[in-house]
Amino acid sequence: MYRSHTCGELRSEHIDQTVKLAGWVQRTRNLGGMTFIDLRDRYGVTQLAFSMEQNADLCEKARKMGREFVIQIEGKVIERSSKNDNIPTGAVEISVSSLNVLSKSEVPPFTIEDDTDGGEELRMKYRYLDLRRNPLKNNMMLRHKLAIETRKYLDDQGFLEIETPYLIKSTPEGARDFVVPSRMHEGQFYALPQSPQTFKQLLMVSGYDKYFQIVRCFRDEDLRADRQPEFTQIDCEMTFVDREDVLNTFEGLTKSLFQNTIDVKLPDFKRMTYDDAMRLYGSDKPDLRFGMEFIELNELTQNKGFKVFDSAELVVGICAKGCANYSRKDLDKLTDFVKRPQIGAKGMVWVKYNEDGSVKSAVDKFYSEDDLKKMLEKADAQPGDLLLILSGETNHTRKAMNELRLEMGNRLGLRDPKKFVPLWVVDFPLLEWDEETERYHAMHHPFTSPIEEDMEMITSAPEKVRANAYDMVINGVEIGGGSIRIHDNELQQKMFDALGFTKEEAQKQFGFLLDAFKYGAPPHGGIAFGFDRLAALAGGRDNIREFIAFPKNNAGRDLMIDSPSIVSTDQLEELHLKIEEKKEE
Amino acid sequence: MYRSHTCGELRSEHIDQTVKLAGWVQRTRNLGGMTFIDLRDRYGVTQLAFSMEQNADLCEKARKMGREFVIQIEGKVIERSSKNDNIPTGAVEISVSSLNVLSKSEVPPFTIEDDTDGGEELRMKYRYLDLRRNPLKNNMMLRHKLAIETRKYLDDQGFLEIETPYLIKSTPEGARDFVVPSRMHEGQFYALPQSPQTFKQLLMVSGYDKYFQIVRCFRDEDLRADRQPEFTQIDCEMTFVDREDVLNTFEGLTKSLFQNTIDVKLPDFKRMTYDDAMRLYGSDKPDLRFGMEFIELNELTQNKGFKVFDSAELVVGICAKGCANYSRKDLDKLTDFVKRPQIGAKGMVWVKYNEDGSVKSAVDKFYSEDDLKKMLEKADAQPGDLLLILSGETNHTRKAMNELRLEMGNRLGLRDPKKFVPLWVVDFPLLEWDEETERYHAMHHPFTSPIEEDMEMITSAPEKVRANAYDMVINGVEIGGGSIRIHDNELQQKMFDALGFTKEEAQKQFGFLLDAFKYGAPPHGGIAFGFDRLAALAGGRDNIREFIAFPKNNAGRDLMIDSPSIVSTDQLEELHLKIEEKKEE
Repeated sequence: MYRSHTCGELRSEHIDQTVKLAGWVQRTRNLGGMTFIDLRDRYGVTQLAFSMEQNADLCEKARKMGREFVIQIEGKVIERSSKNDNIPTGAVEISVSSLNVLSKSEVPPFTIEDDTDGGEELRMKYRYLDLRRNPLKNNMMLRHKLAIETRKYLDDQGFLEIETPYLIKSTPEGARDFVVPSRMHEGQFYALPQSPQTFKQLLMVSGYDKYFQIVRCFRDEDLRADRQPEFTQIDCEMTFVDREDVLNTFEGLTKSLFQNTIDVKLPDFKRMTYDDAMRLYGSDKPDLRFGMEFIELNELTQNKGFKVFDSAELVVGICAKGCANYSRKDLDKLTDFVKRPQIGAKGMVWVKYNEDGSVKSAVDKFYSEDDLKKMLEKADAQPGDLLLILSGETNHTRKAMNELRLEMGNRLGLRDPKKFVPLWVVDFPLLEWDEETERYHAMHHPFTSPIEEDMEMITSAPEKVRANAYDMVINGVEIGGGSIRIHDNELQQKMFDALGFTKEEAQKQFGFLLDAFKYGAPPHGGIAFGFDRLAALAGGRDNIREFIAFPKNNAGRDLMIDSPSIVSTDQLEELHLKIEEKKEE
Repeated sequence: MYRSHTCGELRSEHIDQTVKLAGWVQRTRNLGGMTFIDLRDRYGVTQLAFSMEQNADLCEKARKMGREFVIQIEGKVIERSSKNDNIPTGAVEISVSSLNVLSKSEVPPFTIEDDTDGGEELRMKYRYLDLRRNPLKNNMMLRHKLAIETRKYLDDQGFLEIETPYLIKSTPEGARDFVVPSRMHEGQFYALPQSPQTFKQLLMVSGYDKYFQIVRCFRDEDLRADRQPEFTQIDCEMTFVDREDVLNTFEGLTKSLFQNTIDVKLPDFKRMTYDDAMRLYGSDKPDLRFGMEFIELNELTQNKGFKVFDSAELVVGICAKGCANYSRKDLDKLTDFVKRPQIGAKGMVWVKYNEDGSVKSAVDKFYSEDDLKKMLEKADAQPGDLLLILSGETNHTRKAMNELRLEMGNRLGLRDPKKFVPLWVVDFPLLEWDEETERYHAMHHPFTSPIEEDMEMITSAPEKVRANAYDMVINGVEIGGGSIRIHDNELQQKMFDALGFTKEEAQKQFGFLLDAFKYGAPPHGGIAFGFDRLAALAGGRDNIREFIAFPKNNAGRDLMIDSPSIVSTDQLEELHLKIEEKKEE
């Protein structure tokens, strides 16, 4: 037996017991004739005490223990003279009678402490050491708890977890599919799923009624900070349901998860249409931890001689509470912020409502005090507030204003990671026009059902059709999304027509699903949650990599195992593959 | 709202309630002026009643409902005149007041009944219809329950479920790796994991103490009836444990699973060394639902002039109870059985112990009655029993006798799928000699620790070293296997030496693990269970395909989605790959 207790277990009531512990040396301290070791395992830290007076040999041995040595000790639990209230075991220490080194350690390349001195690249390479640090350990434990609670809740609600295949079929649309060459079938490939969408719909056709799966998905796309080539979804689908049933079920799941993992009682979820979200926040995933809604100012600002506003499709402002005291420099910085290429505003107009009731603006040569006050009034501004205005093409301007609003939220401390405001965004457009390919794309995916009353427009005015789709948004993060699906072959065919698929293409790509719909397909709908993001949100962090045990970096590389990598020519030969030389440009 | 109740819910106490149901038409029957529909969903079947007298139009409509139509009805729960005790809803039926067709169905290509008329290929192609049948539905529900109970048990025991990556690194040894070309990194590949072995060991180095994961694994090997290119494991690892800790933990898990899913109380697990298993059953996964142990007969059979036995390394028999009445034809059939190429015995010798006490044998010209009786006595045979004897090279003969023993077990009805006899097989050889490559291979894997007392032989007599490894075997099926791992860099290096790896090869292939061992690696060990097989065993079936929602066939093809398949040249170009023309032989 390596241990009688863990390093997080001993309390005052264990005093006088003889115990065995095993763990890692967190640190060693010498104090007068004593040596203390903090012994660490997953469960906590326990102080070990060695005395030169009582056992000089053992104490000398203890002094040689380096950081991260793995040791096993036996000793007696005694009361600690100076108690440490910061840790649960802080009332006791072990008077050690024997010490056994199980494994030595070289000096780690960075310190294994809550705040480490290691850069991200180094910590990725030595991920197994980084994972020893409490912040990452707590993230992994939170993730485990979220998965356990998800399964518990859904099992209680009658959902069945059913595993779907990872080796599936590449589709012509699947430009971002990872493919897997088959050794047995020369020149043929499997593909890794971007989601189990078609399989879960087939399970509904099979009558499984309520399905879920916590499942890995794969997408070979250019990576951004919050994307990984492999990511995890909570994937769900239900039969004989309408939108209300789905929203209620998963609002319930989410409330239960927050309650049972981080002890947060979520409020009831607001509902907002996509149109309202875009109009009021310039985003289909607004952060509702703070207001600062968009104020459309076209009527009040145009035809006063200011050409920038006169020629703008949209003039829109936000009211920043208590920011009238912003200096010229502050305002210039904000202007620089909105002019960044990734935001792309041409400029920013500000109106200060000073504490003394006077107004000042960058554009007061075009607008009278009365004009400016009308704008402030519409924005519900009070003395001391600052009105920030952007203008231009509607979508572009809304997008820029969204960024400015979030920036102001950050500056004003309105985006507390411990506060959670959940929201359902509904009534998305079914289709969006893609300029590049000159055809409609499904905003969610081609199986999303239109809202019933809009159905007749699907051939006449496809861009006006709303989808029976919904996103769950918390604090500006899209946590999940889904829809009621098409379950009717004819409607599905119309949808493929609208998307510009020929009958042959549709049949080739989704033939098995269309075939399945011929044999009694029930109404169904579902949702998929981004599990990595959900964990990061619950953990109060932005970076999903901190919630994945072995993540890849932004270039899709695993720095620890050094992958991807070249494979042997033998292996390629067996797969009947050859690597093409890079073509000279 | 599509329904107020499911089709498995209504009982006598619901009589007089107005209800809404939705589901599939299982069958339609006309009886006099009445029409009855069995309406089916995941939860059961409810009878719907329509009367020509009360509502002719509705009854006519009901008569038009084909098999597998999806309908929604409203009606009143009434008492059934002829109750059906075979189904939970058999006391009631619904007097239907309205019927709404949600989805029509063509005639399915095979009948959706417990016993279907569809062949396996057809059912694989229309898997979504096959999954509607009760036997498959019950298998999926059992699998779900097993997963839920596994997680519950392991979470209660302090295990953390941690997801490990699916896009990992191909290794030179990984001849059976599926590889995944990277689009971003030209000419480089990820590989899909054959198991998360190294990652779970790294998690132990990281201090996670107890890890598990229900995880998909991939192996691109020639397929057999019970193999799939992707399969699911319950993968587990523990720190600061010895073999006893691991065996006790997972014996506990397995007992709990059987108790809570199929209500079977497993007996305590027997323990058997690999040597004993081979000697007594000719298999490292003996089926202990019946005895029929091997009796070694060399001493009693040699030097009597029968050259076949005289020249044999091993002469071994089994005693088939009550089979002395086997006819010449029966015995010829058994001889044919053992002479099949896949078994490969040259012949079989039998000795009948007749009910009247006389003996008869195919070889009585070489052996006296006294000789034969001595053999029978050693085999503990009684009058009425039959002794079957094989001979030849030891390993080969044991293997053949194992097949004969299992065949006799089948014939005698000793392999009841509802009876479960679990067993730990321990003390496997660490290494096995591979004639083809002329080097040692790790019997489990290169990280398996030798048994401590055998360690000194690892360079002097590697073939004699026993591994600290164990397999869980139930009813002759290997359900799980694992080992205590090497956690010492030096020993790991010796192991690689014994396996004929150069230092460079070892570093290239497992460098990150060897590196990790430099920073305080704790003693650890674990196990992995074949989850598909476990589900099949608990479900009392041999074929794991029946416990996988969307399996592949024996050629690794998914007949439903038609995969693997060719991909577009554009896609290949993006991956910098070219398919090599098949070389002419």
